[in-house]
Amino acid sequence: MNDCLFCKIIAHEIPCDMVYEDETCMSFLDIHPVNKGHVLIVPKQHCLGSHDADPEVLSKLMLAIQKIAQAMMNATTAPAYNIFQNNGIEAGQVIPHLHFHLIPRFAHDGHLQWHGNVEYSQGEAKEIAGRIKNYF
Amino acid sequence: MNDCLFCKIIAHEIPCDMVYEDETCMSFLDIHPVNKGHVLIVPKQHCLGSHDADPEVLSKLMLAIQKIAQAMMNATTAPAYNIFQNNGIEAGQVIPHLHFHLIPRFAHDGHLQWHGNVEYSQGEAKEIAGRIKNYF
Repeated sequence: MNDCLFCKIIAHEIPCDMVYEDETCMSFLDIHPVNKGHVLIVPKQHCLGSHDADPEVLSKLMLAIQKIAQAMMNATTAPAYNIFQNNGIEAGQVIPHLHFHLIPRFAHDGHLQWHGNVEYSQGEAKEIAGRIKNYF
Repeated sequence: MNDCLFCKIIAHEIPCDMVYEDETCMSFLDIHPVNKGHVLIVPKQHCLGSHDADPEVLSKLMLAIQKIAQAMMNATTAPAYNIFQNNGIEAGQVIPHLHFHLIPRFAHDGHLQWHGNVEYSQGEAKEIAGRIKNYF
């Protein structure tokens, strides 16, 4: 896409600190890192999110993420990491080109997970699960 | 694994609100949801995180996530969603069996992303990117 930041990075029109590239994807440092060594992994084929990605591309992307996670842990000596992927503005997606965040994590680095504290009413969980299940 | 909560759910020894199952994985509602309809996707083969998963399993898991994301959006009418995966205690992992969180998101639901505000010193980003790259 002509006006897509990540497509321009992939086309080498905008520079990045690249860590990995193969025929399907590119990975480079996030310029606004949560921790140092925070990388993004993007497919070369433009798509918005995980739901509209080509299944084969998505599958290869996941295998690249696995390799990059190992390399990132080795290089940063991080004992842990998060994989985050935001789909849609309401989910915090800023650049509308599918990208996975890979974030090295350290003990007491101050980043807290969301606290899951929503309560289902009686029977509601079963009803919602059933509704999701019906789409298969 | 005998003492693993998710292995017990997969073996139907502990009940869950299941939404999807195939030969590789199972998906069910998180009992502490961030939003209603928040599901987990777990591989049937026990592993700790994305780095030690069987690549073929991980790849199939991602394809299941893609289908479940679509079903979950349809069932909850969520306009957006996050995919989260925590590896290691320092990254907020509580159950030591690989699991992906799929969280439906709504405008103004109050869940804020981490603000990436770490600054690299002069030349540091290039140095760290080079270090990661060296592991390939």
